Amino acid sequence: MTTGSTNSVSTAAGQPAETDEVKGRLGVRAGTEVTLSIDAMGGDRGPATIVAGIARSAAKNPAVKFILHGNGPLLEKLVARRRSLRGRVIIRSVPGIVTMDEKPSQAMRRADTSMRSAIDAVKDGEAQACVSCGNTGALMATSMIRLRKLEGVNRPAIACLWPSRNAQGFNVMLDVGADIRADAQDLLQYAMMGASYARNGLGLEVPRVGLLNVGTEEHKGRAELKAANDLIANGETLGKYTYVGFVEGGHIPGNVVDVIVTDGFTGNVALKTGEGTAKLVGDLLKEAFKATPLSRVAALLALTSLKRLQKRIDPRRVNGGVFLGLRGTVVKSHGSADATGVSAAVKLAYELAASGFSERLAARVASAVASTQNDGTS
Amino acid sequence: MTTGSTNSVSTAAGQPAETDEVKGRLGVRAGTEVTLSIDAMGGDRGPATIVAGIARSAAKNPAVKFILHGNGPLLEKLVARRRSLRGRVIIRSVPGIVTMDEKPSQAMRRADTSMRSAIDAVKDGEAQACVSCGNTGALMATSMIRLRKLEGVNRPAIACLWPSRNAQGFNVMLDVGADIRADAQDLLQYAMMGASYARNGLGLEVPRVGLLNVGTEEHKGRAELKAANDLIANGETLGKYTYVGFVEGGHIPGNVVDVIVTDGFTGNVALKTGEGTAKLVGDLLKEAFKATPLSRVAALLALTSLKRLQKRIDPRRVNGGVFLGLRGTVVKSHGSADATGVSAAVKLAYELAASGFSERLAARVASAVASTQNDGTS
Repeated sequence: MTTGSTNSVSTAAGQPAETDEVKGRLGVRAGTEVTLSIDAMGGDRGPATIVAGIARSAAKNPAVKFILHGNGPLLEKLVARRRSLRGRVIIRSVPGIVTMDEKPSQAMRRADTSMRSAIDAVKDGEAQACVSCGNTGALMATSMIRLRKLEGVNRPAIACLWPSRNAQGFNVMLDVGADIRADAQDLLQYAMMGASYARNGLGLEVPRVGLLNVGTEEHKGRAELKAANDLIANGETLGKYTYVGFVEGGHIPGNVVDVIVTDGFTGNVALKTGEGTAKLVGDLLKEAFKATPLSRVAALLALTSLKRLQKRIDPRRVNGGVFLGLRGTVVKSHGSADATGVSAAVKLAYELAASGFSERLAARVASAVASTQNDGTS
Repeated sequence: MTTGSTNSVSTAAGQPAETDEVKGRLGVRAGTEVTLSIDAMGGDRGPATIVAGIARSAAKNPAVKFILHGNGPLLEKLVARRRSLRGRVIIRSVPGIVTMDEKPSQAMRRADTSMRSAIDAVKDGEAQACVSCGNTGALMATSMIRLRKLEGVNRPAIACLWPSRNAQGFNVMLDVGADIRADAQDLLQYAMMGASYARNGLGLEVPRVGLLNVGTEEHKGRAELKAANDLIANGETLGKYTYVGFVEGGHIPGNVVDVIVTDGFTGNVALKTGEGTAKLVGDLLKEAFKATPLSRVAALLALTSLKRLQKRIDPRRVNGGVFLGLRGTVVKSHGSADATGVSAAVKLAYELAASGFSERLAARVASAVASTQNDGTS
């Protein structure tokens, strides 16, 4: 997620964001104290990387504290080495670890895991948000049974930020992998929740919402997309967004839309394809600069500009999928995140917690549900 | 498609490619005469761009001739201006034009269009392949009723080449938009046809085939993907490929797989997302080089290396989706293709026609059908 972003976000004066005024990118009041609950055992790189990541965040932000869940003695040792974490970490020793390829239905039944313990700290109000680099399916399944869904939400979604040509530098896309299915009603809810996230997270008063399809013509696509097209168009006033209609894959990094709505299968493939493509181009660029002595000199000269570009498109800096539609905030970091990536996910979780986004989203969904029940529209 | 590609393709000596030995990238004997049928009215940029594109191809390749379909007087004028086309073009005047947003079911019923006329020239044996920049759905629908499907093929597919980390520099992905649905049997046929295309088109004796999913674990994904996973694994010997199992979006530009099998909805979104992302990174790179006087000097120094990179990832140079599963070769160029893009699609069509790929693919599909009928396996 846009952590070290230098993009200024224009927020009209006095513009209300759900129920509160926007303060900065995520409406955060500087110094708001937040405790984050961290699953220290999830991810491909192990607890040392996760502790390194939270230490980095702690050094930058004196208002954040942590509860770490996992192998107690190991975590004690890792935390003791980090000066920035001194006095700011509670360690909760839990023996179980959810593996990256474990079935969600199995993982969610285990009571002794670091993942479940991390989610429960949010459930019990000890922490304001949870961060995990672990198994996505297991994290979603466990979050659903422990935190429960917001009333009126059928399928929660994972929303990610995507580098784009927009003024704010990022689009929101959802669902990127919570559920491989989504019917028309789910897609409408994604539009509502995504618009709320864009309003609070990117400071856009009336976000532009688009529905991902294989063409922009109305007759294209699967049946559920045609039905969703009508529902989302009718939901404009209620959801406080502008509906631009169908969009294509090429629009995701573009500037015609702020919120891209799709099912979790398509969204996940698009996200990973985009990341893979950006990485390929970046790798080829590095090779191009090593190709000749002249190009090596050029690389030195352009270093500052290239570093700025790298920062702009670095997938580690847009790390963190937010679970939308639950009674609590859960941020899913990439399984392969390094310390920079973990720190980006922690920063996002801090901002979401400090801005009270979870409560605002709940209020928005509740008002949509009430309105639907009152006037019979959907 | 890989036109000016400098990637050498290793082909083991004496390696049979379907029924014929491989000569070069697409098994083309230099100087093989080919007549291509061109829909001159399709696409966003109009006939002037299409004529400019074929003129470029004609200047490079003395063995190619054209039949142009469209507005006769206009085409006469455009062709007369191009020295390289002198004596090598037949113009067929046809009044109708299929618009880019016309419904396929409607377009395929019209007998007077440049698109239908271009396909019919292949059907009647006057040309060995057809190229169109027009409406994809209409082109596929018209191709299906005029050329007909190969026996044993339920859903034809569109295959594209994708810049990747592979030794050959490209992967094959299909379907990227012929049909928004695909069941397990269709996906098996895509694996067979895609492997044949990779063998003939990229010189890979035993291509590695992967099935696109949201994770590599066997329990993930939709029901039809689990069924297809088994079918494609069982088809290895028959299809002369190695099955690597499920792959994710991030593997598309990578080096673990040569043929990516997916439904046309997902493939189309992935293709356009990848193109859009590559374009965003390229645009940002250009801006980075303009940012400071120092970076402008750097850009000059690195010019050769950067141009090589640009050529490698330029979407215009990988322009051309091949329709697989029909009795005849049809190449779909991007609707927004410029002259470079049209020329790339023409080169691909020439190579496919000159190498007899259509006949080889038909033989492969027929042998798969026969084998299935004989031993009862699928």
